[in-house]
Amino acid sequence: MQQLIRINVINGNTFDTMTRGINESAQAARFLSTEIITTQPRTGPESIESYYDEYLAIPGILEEIVLSEANFDAFVIACWGDPGIEAARELTTKPIVGIAEASMYVANMLAARWGVLTTQHRTLDMVEKTIHKAGFSHRCVSIRTTGLAVAETETARDAAVDALEAIGRLAILEDKAEAFCLGCAGMGRLDTELERRLGVPIIDSVAAAVKMAESLVGLRKQTSKALTYKPPESKLIKGFPKLMQPGG
Amino acid sequence: MQQLIRINVINGNTFDTMTRGINESAQAARFLSTEIITTQPRTGPESIESYYDEYLAIPGILEEIVLSEANFDAFVIACWGDPGIEAARELTTKPIVGIAEASMYVANMLAARWGVLTTQHRTLDMVEKTIHKAGFSHRCVSIRTTGLAVAETETARDAAVDALEAIGRLAILEDKAEAFCLGCAGMGRLDTELERRLGVPIIDSVAAAVKMAESLVGLRKQTSKALTYKPPESKLIKGFPKLMQPGG
Amino acid sequence: MQQLIRINVINGNTFDTMTRGINESAQAARFLSTEIITTQPRTGPESIESYYDEYLAIPGILEEIVLSEANFDAFVIACWGDPGIEAARELTTKPIVGIAEASMYVANMLAARWGVLTTQHRTLDMVEKTIHKAGFSHRCVSIRTTGLAVAETETARDAAVDALEAIGRLAILEDKAEAFCLGCAGMGRLDTELERRLGVPIIDSVAAAVKMAESLVGLRKQTSKALTYKPPESKLIKGFPKLMQPGG
Amino acid sequence: MQQLIRINVINGNTFDTMTRGINESAQAARFLSTEIITTQPRTGPESIESYYDEYLAIPGILEEIVLSEANFDAFVIACWGDPGIEAARELTTKPIVGIAEASMYVANMLAARWGVLTTQHRTLDMVEKTIHKAGFSHRCVSIRTTGLAVAETETARDAAVDALEAIGRLAILEDKAEAFCLGCAGMGRLDTELERRLGVPIIDSVAAAVKMAESLVGLRKQTSKALTYKPPESKLIKGFPKLMQPGG
Amino acid sequence: MQQLIRINVINGNTFDTMTRGINESAQAARFLSTEIITTQPRTGPESIESYYDEYLAIPGILEEIVLSEANFDAFVIACWGDPGIEAARELTTKPIVGIAEASMYVANMLAARWGVLTTQHRTLDMVEKTIHKAGFSHRCVSIRTTGLAVAETETARDAAVDALEAIGRLAILEDKAEAFCLGCAGMGRLDTELERRLGVPIIDSVAAAVKMAESLVGLRKQTSKALTYKPPESKLIKGFPKLMQPGG
Amino acid sequence: MQQLIRINVINGNTFDTMTRGINESAQAARFLSTEIITTQPRTGPESIESYYDEYLAIPGILEEIVLSEANFDAFVIACWGDPGIEAARELTTKPIVGIAEASMYVANMLAARWGVLTTQHRTLDMVEKTIHKAGFSHRCVSIRTTGLAVAETETARDAAVDALEAIGRLAILEDKAEAFCLGCAGMGRLDTELERRLGVPIIDSVAAAVKMAESLVGLRKQTSKALTYKPPESKLIKGFPKLMQPGG
Repeated sequence: MQQLIRINVINGNTFDTMTRGINESAQAARFLSTEIITTQPRTGPESIESYYDEYLAIPGILEEIVLSEANFDAFVIACWGDPGIEAARELTTKPIVGIAEASMYVANMLAARWGVLTTQHRTLDMVEKTIHKAGFSHRCVSIRTTGLAVAETETARDAAVDALEAIGRLAILEDKAEAFCLGCAGMGRLDTELERRLGVPIIDSVAAAVKMAESLVGLRKQTSKALTYKPPESKLIKGFPKLMQPGG
Repeated sequence: MQQLIRINVINGNTFDTMTRGINESAQAARFLSTEIITTQPRTGPESIESYYDEYLAIPGILEEIVLSEANFDAFVIACWGDPGIEAARELTTKPIVGIAEASMYVANMLAARWGVLTTQHRTLDMVEKTIHKAGFSHRCVSIRTTGLAVAETETARDAAVDALEAIGRLAILEDKAEAFCLGCAGMGRLDTELERRLGVPIIDSVAAAVKMAESLVGLRKQTSKALTYKPPESKLIKGFPKLMQPGG
Repeated sequence: MQQLIRINVINGNTFDTMTRGINESAQAARFLSTEIITTQPRTGPESIESYYDEYLAIPGILEEIVLSEANFDAFVIACWGDPGIEAARELTTKPIVGIAEASMYVANMLAARWGVLTTQHRTLDMVEKTIHKAGFSHRCVSIRTTGLAVAETETARDAAVDALEAIGRLAILEDKAEAFCLGCAGMGRLDTELERRLGVPIIDSVAAAVKMAESLVGLRKQTSKALTYKPPESKLIKGFPKLMQPGG
Repeated sequence: MQQLIRINVINGNTFDTMTRGINESAQAARFLSTEIITTQPRTGPESIESYYDEYLAIPGILEEIVLSEANFDAFVIACWGDPGIEAARELTTKPIVGIAEASMYVANMLAARWGVLTTQHRTLDMVEKTIHKAGFSHRCVSIRTTGLAVAETETARDAAVDALEAIGRLAILEDKAEAFCLGCAGMGRLDTELERRLGVPIIDSVAAAVKMAESLVGLRKQTSKALTYKPPESKLIKGFPKLMQPGG
Repeated sequence: MQQLIRINVINGNTFDTMTRGINESAQAARFLSTEIITTQPRTGPESIESYYDEYLAIPGILEEIVLSEANFDAFVIACWGDPGIEAARELTTKPIVGIAEASMYVANMLAARWGVLTTQHRTLDMVEKTIHKAGFSHRCVSIRTTGLAVAETETARDAAVDALEAIGRLAILEDKAEAFCLGCAGMGRLDTELERRLGVPIIDSVAAAVKMAESLVGLRKQTSKALTYKPPESKLIKGFPKLMQPGG
Repeated sequence: MQQLIRINVINGNTFDTMTRGINESAQAARFLSTEIITTQPRTGPESIESYYDEYLAIPGILEEIVLSEANFDAFVIACWGDPGIEAARELTTKPIVGIAEASMYVANMLAARWGVLTTQHRTLDMVEKTIHKAGFSHRCVSIRTTGLAVAETETARDAAVDALEAIGRLAILEDKAEAFCLGCAGMGRLDTELERRLGVPIIDSVAAAVKMAESLVGLRKQTSKALTYKPPESKLIKGFPKLMQPGG
C-alpha cells in the first residue's frame, strides 16, 4: 500500500483568498496518496511585499509549525523568499520545503537559463538575494516584475496574467530566458495559461514544493540535527506564548 | 486514480551487478504508482572512474534514451557526475534527472552544510567540477574519497561501508559536514546503515533522482525547447547508427 | 558648534546584563558630542544563538525603531548577524547600522585577512551566511567558535576571554588571520585585553557600529527610498499592535 | 574633552585646484574636533585617468605618508581606486582609508543596489576591478561614465553636474540603482546638488573617507602588523631618496 | 638547431572542408620548425552545434589521440568548447590544448574586456559554461551569435564575415568589448579581415592553440599524472575497439 | 625563413644576480629564432617582497618599456605579481606578458589542481590577490611559502630547493596539488630539479612568459587600444623625466 503523506502547506501571509488559491495549487499537484492541508498563520501581514512584511510573517509561520508539528509529515512554506526556513528546520526533524528553492530546483532540471516573474518592482532585491543565497546567480538570467500588488495578482487574474505574459515575453527576447519560476504563491494556477501563451515551461512554485515535500518524505529523510539545525537552545523568549518557548 | 509514471533509470556504466543494485535503490524509492525499469547502455565502460570513462559512457546513455524515448515518462541518469545530461535534454521533452543534481537538491533541503563521499581519490576534481557547475560550492563543505574502486564498492559491501563511515566521521569532525550525498550509483542501499553509524542524513543519490523524476512528471512539466535544449540539428553523425542521426 | 548626534543602540536580545554591557561599549566609543541610549526590545529571546532566536528577535527590534524613530538620528542593531536590518531600513530614512557589517568594514581597513571569533558552535553557518551576503568570503579566512553560550560569554568574562584567546591563537597560526571581529555583542569590551594577548587588532563590533552611525549622520545621508527600502506597503498585519501597522 | 584627531587627506594627483576642492569636501565633513590638512604629492600626474597615471602617482602618495607620518593620526588617499593603499598600510600603524572603499561601505549602508558615476570612459575597467577586489560585484549594479576629463570635471562644474545627472538618471531607470558613489575625488561637493536633482543618496567619497578615518582613530585601532602589512623589508631601493629606503 | 615539434591539430567534427580550413589556420600560425598535421576523427558529427553533437564527437577525438599518440609531441582539440579535453589529458603525458582555453588566454593578454563571437544562437549556454569553467566570467563581457550554422560559416565566407562584423560592432558599442575570440574553429582565417573592419584584436582560436601547444612542448612540460589526469583505470569498455580499452 | 622575435625580459627588481638568473631561464626557453635581452629597471627595489616594494618597482619597469619600446617586439615583466602590467599595456601596442599570468595559463593546461610555491610568508595575500584577479581561485588549491627572502632564494640555491621541496610535498599530500607555479622570478632554473624530486610539473614562470610572448608575436597580435589600454592621456607628470610624459 502506498505510504500516506500528510503535508501542511503554510501560506506565508494571512490573506484568506490566497490561502484558498494556494490550496488549489497544492491539491492539484499532490499524489493521490498525499493529504494536503493548507493553513495560514494566526499573525502576520496580508501579503509579503517588503522585508518588513517578510520578517513580521515569520513568527506566525513558525508558530503554525509548532502547533501542528505532530500532525504532519512535512511542511511547505508558501511564500517565494522562503521566510524563516532555517528556523523552521530547527523546530522539527520533519522535512521543510520552501517554494522558492523548490521552484528553482525544478527550473534547473528543465532549462539551462531561467527567470523569475514576480509582483512589486521593489522586490527585485529580495528576489536577487534569494537566488544568490541558493547559488543560482549563474542560472537565473532574468528577474522581471509586473508592478502589481500581491493582492491584485490574486484577485485580478486576467490583468495579472496579461502582465506576466508581457514581462515574460521581454525576458525571453532580451534575456534569453527559457523557463520561468512564478515568484509569488499567489500566481499558482497561472502556469498552464502562461505556458500556452509563452511556449516555455512555467513553474507553479507551490506545486513544485509539494512534490519536493513528497519526495523527502518518500525518501524517509529527516533534517540534520548535527549542528546548524539542532533544536533551538532552551531559553526565555519574552512576549511569545508558552508553546513558542524552546525546551519549554 | 493515481497517474501511472514510467521511469527509465539508466545505469551510466555496463556493469550488470551495479545495474541490479541501482534497480534495488530505485524500486525501494518509487511511489507505488510508479513503474521503474533499470537499464544499462549497450556500450561503455564497466565503471566510471575517470573523465575517459565518463565520456565513453555518454553515447551509450544517449542511445538508451533514443531507443526507449517513447516508452517512458522520464529518465534518470544514474552516475554521479550526470554524464551527458544536457544532450539527453535535447533528445526529448520528457524530464531528465541526474543523480548528482538530485542528491544535492535533497542535501540542501536537509542540511546547511553537506559533503560528498565517493570512491577513487582521482575523482576529486570531477566531483568538485560537478558541484561548481551546479552552484553549490558554498554549500558543499567536504569531499572525501575512500580510495576504493567502483566495482569493489559494489561487491565488497562491508569494506565499503566501513570505509565510508571512516571518511564520513572525519568530514563531520573536521569539516563540520551535517549530511552526505553518496557520490556513486553503486553506493545506493548503504544510506540506512551509514545513517545508523554516523547519525546524519545520508542520501542515496539514485533514490533522490527517482523522486525528482516523479515530481517533474507529476507536475506535467517538459524540458524547455526554447533555445539550449532544442532538438539536435539535423546532420550526419559518422560512425553512429541510423537511430542516432538527428532529424533522421 | 559640533552637531549633536543621538543614536539608539538596540540590543538584539532581551537580556538586561548584555544591554548594560553593550551600553558600556557604545558609550566608550562615541564622540563627546554623540548621545547614546542603549535599549532592548520589549519582546524576543534572551540571547540569539539559533535562527529561531534570530527571527523571533526581529519584531521586537523593529518595534523599538518604530517607537523611538522620532527621537534619534540613527540606529544600531547590536547583534552580529544584523537581524532585520533590511526591514529596519524600510521604516525610516535615518541611518541603520548593523554591528556585523560595521565590524567587517573596520576589519577590511585594518587587515588583509581577518577572522570572526564567536560563541556557540552551531552559529558557524549563520556567520558564514552573514559574510557571504556582505561579499567578504575572500577576506574572511577564519571562523572559530568557543562553544560557550552567549550568556556565559557575558557573565563569565575570564573564561570567555581565555577561550577567545585560544581560538584566536589557532586562527592566527593555522589560518593566517591578521585581525578579528568579535562576533557577538556580548563580547564588547574584551577587545583591549584580547589585543594585548594576541597582538593583532580586535574589533568590538558594537563600537565599530557606533562610529559608522556617527559617520552617516555626520555626512547627513539618508537611506535611499528609491526602490528596495521604500516604506512598507500599507496593509493589515494581524496580531501586531497599531503602531506596527504600515501606513496606519 | 573630545579627542583631537589629525588627518592628512592626500590628493592622489598634483593638481592644485583639485587639492583645494578636496580640502573643501574634507573640511565640510569633519567633526569639529578633527583637524584636516589636505596635501598633494610632490611628484605624480595632474590627474589620474589611466593605469599609467595611477601607478606613477603612487610613489608620491607613499612619500607624502613617510614625510608626514609622525604628525597625523590617520591618512586618507583621495583618489577613487585607492592607489597604493596596501603599501601605505605597510608604512605605518596609523589607519589608512581609501575613498573608494569608504564610499562603497557608505553606499552599502544606505541602499541595496548602488552605482558608481565617474569621468573618462576608459576608466570602466579600473572601476570594475576596484569593486571586484572589494567584493561588491553583487551590490554595484551600474557603472556609468560622463566621458569628461578629470580636470574638466573639476573646473567646468555646471557641465559636470549636468552630465552626472544625465548618467545617473539612466542608471536609476535602466539599472535600478538606488544610490551613487561619486567615483572621482574631483566630484566632491557635487553631492548635494545631485541629490536634489536625482532624489537618491549621492556619496561624496572624500567626505565618506574622512568619517571612516575619524572612526578608526576614535576606535583607537591600528593596522595589523601580523603578516601582510608588516613594515617593508629593509633593502636598497635605487633611485629613491633616503627617507624612502625601508629600515633606513 | 631548433627543436622540431610535431602537433596533431584535431578538428572536432568530421567535415572535410572545415578540416582544410583549420589546417590553413594552423599552418599559418606555426613556427617554421613546427610540423602540423590536421586530422579529423573517424566518427562523429559534421559540425558541433549542440550538446548532443559535442558528446558524440568526443569518442572520435579521443580515438584519434590514441591512434596517433606516439607520432606527435602535442595535440590541439579544434572545437571551441574543448570537447573531451580532460579525458584527452588522461590518455597521454604529451600536452593537450583546447582552442577555447587558448583563445581566452590570448584575449586576456591583449584586452581588459573581451567577447566571444560565434554561430548558432543555441550555443549561448555552451559558450557561457565554457567561460565559467575557465574562470573568466569577469573578463568576458559579451557573447554574441550570428545565428548561422557552422557549415554556412565555413562555406559562405562573405555572409559570415558580414554577420560577425555586425555582432562585433554591437558588442563594442553596447558591451564595451575590446577584443574577440572567434568561437568556432570554422572561423579561422577571418581574423585579419575582421580586425580591419572592427579595429580591435580578433583571435583565430586555432592559431592561438597552435602557439600554446608549441609553448608547452618548448617548455618540455608534460601533463601531470599525480591524480586527476592519471591514465584511465584498466577495465572493459563495451562496444569500443581494442585500442580504446584502457590498460589493454 | 623564421620570423625573428626580439623580447625584452624585464626583471622587476634591481638585483643584478637575479637579472642574470632570469636571463638564463629566458635564454633556455626561447626558440632559436628569438632574441632575448634581459634588462633591469634603473630604479626600484633590490627585491619585491611587499606591496611597498612592488609599487616602487613599477615606475622603473614602465621607464624601461618606454626607453626600449622601439627595439623589441614584446616585453615580459619578470616578477610574479605582474607589477604595473595594465599600465605597460597602455604604453605600447606590442604584447606585454606577466610571468604570473603566463605560469597560471601553463598550469591550467597541465593539471586540474595546482599550487604556487613562493618566498616570504608575508606575500600570501599578494599571491592570493593575483590569483583572484586572474579568475583562478577555483583552480589554485595551495599557496605555500618557504619563508626565505628573495635574495636568499637566488643565492642559496641548495637551501631554497630543499625548502621548496618540503612545502611542495605538503601541498601534494594535504592539498592534492598536481603541479606548481614557481612564484618568484628568482626560482627560475629550479624547475627541473624540483620535478625530479616531486614528480609533478613545475613551472618556471619566466620561461612560461617567454613562450607566451613568442606566441603573441607569432600570432601578429597587438594590445587592444579600444578603451582600457589606450595610450595614457596627455598631461604633466611632475617629478618624472621628459620621456615619461604622456603625449610629450
